[in-house]
Amino acid sequence: MNRTLLYFDDLKIGDTFHTATHTLDLVQIKAFAQQFDPQPFHLDEDAARASMFGGIAASGWHTAAITMQLLVTSGPPLANGIVGAGGEIEWKAPTRPGDVLQVHSEVVALTPSRSRPDRGLVVLRSDTSNQRGEILQILTAKLMVARRPG
Amino acid sequence: MNRTLLYFDDLKIGDTFHTATHTLDLVQIKAFAQQFDPQPFHLDEDAARASMFGGIAASGWHTAAITMQLLVTSGPPLANGIVGAGGEIEWKAPTRPGDVLQVHSEVVALTPSRSRPDRGLVVLRSDTSNQRGEILQILTAKLMVARRPG
Repeated sequence: MNRTLLYFDDLKIGDTFHTATHTLDLVQIKAFAQQFDPQPFHLDEDAARASMFGGIAASGWHTAAITMQLLVTSGPPLANGIVGAGGEIEWKAPTRPGDVLQVHSEVVALTPSRSRPDRGLVVLRSDTSNQRGEILQILTAKLMVARRPG
Repeated sequence: MNRTLLYFDDLKIGDTFHTATHTLDLVQIKAFAQQFDPQPFHLDEDAARASMFGGIAASGWHTAAITMQLLVTSGPPLANGIVGAGGEIEWKAPTRPGDVLQVHSEVVALTPSRSRPDRGLVVLRSDTSNQRGEILQILTAKLMVARRPG
């Protein structure tokens, strides 16, 4: 696929982007959790069954990290990369072993920077869903996007 | 340290918690970025110098993941673990190789659940700072916390 780089000036509210997919398995879930979120419901099947998750769930931060990986490698081809100032994140449902994650994004706001004429602020809503179309995470990110030079 | 488990009913607005520290190095920054955020300013010194970061910076999601690791292992000892429904995240400054991260948290809101009498919603603000006291990230998380049984 030809991925022409996009500048702030190329974006319109309502523009949508759809990434490739990532299949998550138990090995990945446990490896991430051991390093960054060592809680029983991410690491141990029996403990997870007894928890409010009712079974092994990926760390929400793992879902967020995979979302970023999908956005960077197959999401909007922004000229200066995907650079976030922050945003809001909601975890709507647990991410499970075997889930096939995909990210669907939409531009929801565009604000040129007053102080930095070389860039603008883009609000990008990204829904991370599984193979059944269930939305697991909604990330509403504030991205700094370069303006077209010249 | 004796870490008595805390229930929703044990928390008060204004309660503070301070974690242990985590020292981040270039190897960790590149390993995380290769897997989850493969952009030049996280992976390549020359490209990073020429970018808006002016040098290698950790992925914001790496800072978030380390924040979670610190909260889980040495933050508030919540009875049912640290279970987030979502929240807001702001990256205030780049996280750099050699930074020593620590998380300072404060309870900013407490709301008993109407629909689920066994839990409440806790809003916990967590500042992730480096060894110079510079705040790199602010996470305002909505946590589901179990109420004291009986």
